[in-house]
Amino acid sequence: MSENKESATKASNEAIVPGQALSSLVWKGDHLSMLDQRLLPESIVMLDLFTAEEVWDGIHAMKVRGAPAIGMAAAYGVVLGASAYGGTDAAGWLEHVHSVCGHLATSRPTAVNLFWALDRMKKRAKELTAEATEGRVEDWNAGLEHEAISIQAEDEEVCRLIGVHALPLFQDGMGVLTHCNAGGLATAKYGTALAPMYLAHENGIHLKVFADETRPVLQGARLTAFELQQVGIDVTLLCDNMAGMVMAKGWVQAVIVGTDRVAANGDVANKIGTYSLAVLAKAHGIPFYVASPLSTIDLHTATGADIPIEERPAEEVTESFGKRTAPQGIKVYNPAFDITPHEYITAIITEKGIVQAPFSDSLPALFAD
Amino acid sequence: MSENKESATKASNEAIVPGQALSSLVWKGDHLSMLDQRLLPESIVMLDLFTAEEVWDGIHAMKVRGAPAIGMAAAYGVVLGASAYGGTDAAGWLEHVHSVCGHLATSRPTAVNLFWALDRMKKRAKELTAEATEGRVEDWNAGLEHEAISIQAEDEEVCRLIGVHALPLFQDGMGVLTHCNAGGLATAKYGTALAPMYLAHENGIHLKVFADETRPVLQGARLTAFELQQVGIDVTLLCDNMAGMVMAKGWVQAVIVGTDRVAANGDVANKIGTYSLAVLAKAHGIPFYVASPLSTIDLHTATGADIPIEERPAEEVTESFGKRTAPQGIKVYNPAFDITPHEYITAIITEKGIVQAPFSDSLPALFAD
Repeated sequence: MSENKESATKASNEAIVPGQALSSLVWKGDHLSMLDQRLLPESIVMLDLFTAEEVWDGIHAMKVRGAPAIGMAAAYGVVLGASAYGGTDAAGWLEHVHSVCGHLATSRPTAVNLFWALDRMKKRAKELTAEATEGRVEDWNAGLEHEAISIQAEDEEVCRLIGVHALPLFQDGMGVLTHCNAGGLATAKYGTALAPMYLAHENGIHLKVFADETRPVLQGARLTAFELQQVGIDVTLLCDNMAGMVMAKGWVQAVIVGTDRVAANGDVANKIGTYSLAVLAKAHGIPFYVASPLSTIDLHTATGADIPIEERPAEEVTESFGKRTAPQGIKVYNPAFDITPHEYITAIITEKGIVQAPFSDSLPALFAD
Repeated sequence: MSENKESATKASNEAIVPGQALSSLVWKGDHLSMLDQRLLPESIVMLDLFTAEEVWDGIHAMKVRGAPAIGMAAAYGVVLGASAYGGTDAAGWLEHVHSVCGHLATSRPTAVNLFWALDRMKKRAKELTAEATEGRVEDWNAGLEHEAISIQAEDEEVCRLIGVHALPLFQDGMGVLTHCNAGGLATAKYGTALAPMYLAHENGIHLKVFADETRPVLQGARLTAFELQQVGIDVTLLCDNMAGMVMAKGWVQAVIVGTDRVAANGDVANKIGTYSLAVLAKAHGIPFYVASPLSTIDLHTATGADIPIEERPAEEVTESFGKRTAPQGIKVYNPAFDITPHEYITAIITEKGIVQAPFSDSLPALFAD
């Protein structure tokens, strides 16, 4: 693979504005500028990606992460892949676009937004070629670019609406615990689970946020703590194993997390550790909310048992901080996600409103109109 | 404070023998050789400590950790401190010993073994001076040295007996989850929670051990995984937030942990994260065992609410891997321990046998004869 051009930007320049969130993905017309989230909060590095293969690597290596952001990145990957087509015929172009989508679909297995975005790009490609069947490769490529930009723009509005619907669940002074990063860095803006925190902050409602650091990749410490701190939201960092004690102390009145896939029965795949939090929340009588765009709800997946769970390399656990912290040759189990059964979930908050059990009825109803 | 002499030893020399456990504390007659557990498993460094102040720092900085080992180290610290007495009179010597004990007692607040060992050394000092009231400083110092050596020797036997009593709870093929390090490195030998694993291994009983890495200081990854791997016990390393998923998969038939203090009602203080594990174990119908020497049971502490919980520096969470992993200035909550209420505890395993609820009856009975 070719070396990515890197434009390292200092905290003082355009990439980071105090009181304003960083963007994880910026479309530059001929390439995708991707924030390397692995390097946060120490370094702000925007990667300039010019090929679908570079986007594949960006998703696979978790330079970009967060279910909605993965979907957006993949959509731009399709745009970059399509622009490399050398022919002029619709069938060849369409086949090429499908091939690019097929490859991008192998970058990560769990987040359904990836497949959702690729399906949407394939559908748009088909529509474009149906409209004009020959000699219009540039127009078709422009059509795909427009679709990818729309996906990103819609995501911002979706997240804002999730925040609007969630906001009444949170009162001034409440303690709210979250896990991993379902924030602005995981989406176009606002995030899903963090959207109500941003909106509360804009409306002068004070929430005391507890952010699990989220081992092994520390998205909570590096991303959630970072982005909330940037805008001045009250956030306290915890190790994952402290959540139970903080709940026992009565400091938490709600848990809210994002998700990588919601099954038709309401089972939720999300970052490893979410299930433990849900069990702890239930034991302490604390509501457990999942913030999810409709694009993350997969009615074709019956239950959580049908969601593939990605296992990642042992080195994420044993060497992830540039220093070996476990003996050589040790066996490691490193699932990236877990499944929270629907009975632990108080409500799922979407851009179309809040749904509750029975989810096998309430989730399909969201898609009815 | 004076610089400690460090004798770094390579994996090939006397400090590390394949198939044989490392010793965290070795008494050398005129000084204490202390394994710097903070550097494991990357480096095996034995520190040569010649003063009580150096021992204080070793405990405070967690070069030695594990409730029984802290008690043993403190006892040797008293020996080193006493030997610095310049006078010849019993009252002065006794006062000096008390002063040394008072200082060592400030090194860490939670593990009761520290206070237990210091009380035992003070009691012995009093006995020694009662036996011969003047001019026998060397004999009194030798008496204290003998007492400290006895504490260490007894601890090995106590741990072995805990293993003997616990062993029938574990059958061949069982999955056993543990947290932090309550192993040979935390004690004279065998450990408390790990004692049944060592004895099972010696008896050809195969247990599949899951070791939580135990943030923030990673005693599970660095110590438990290391010491079990050393002797060939089947161990798999997990991040703390994976325990719930592993339980949900049915891979765990028992949880066993050590403890830093057991209150009279059976509430248990142990490494942060223990409480979450206990809640998870209960939700999955998995027995939750606590391995505890009698020296860790504190009948003078009525309930867990009366146990002081040490809070440690934010940097343990934000910088513990030699690299900053959270934004500058972030708020951090870093309690070193939590309290597991007695109703979550299936049984407490001691050197005198296994006790169950009601603990307010069964615990005092252990001390009856």
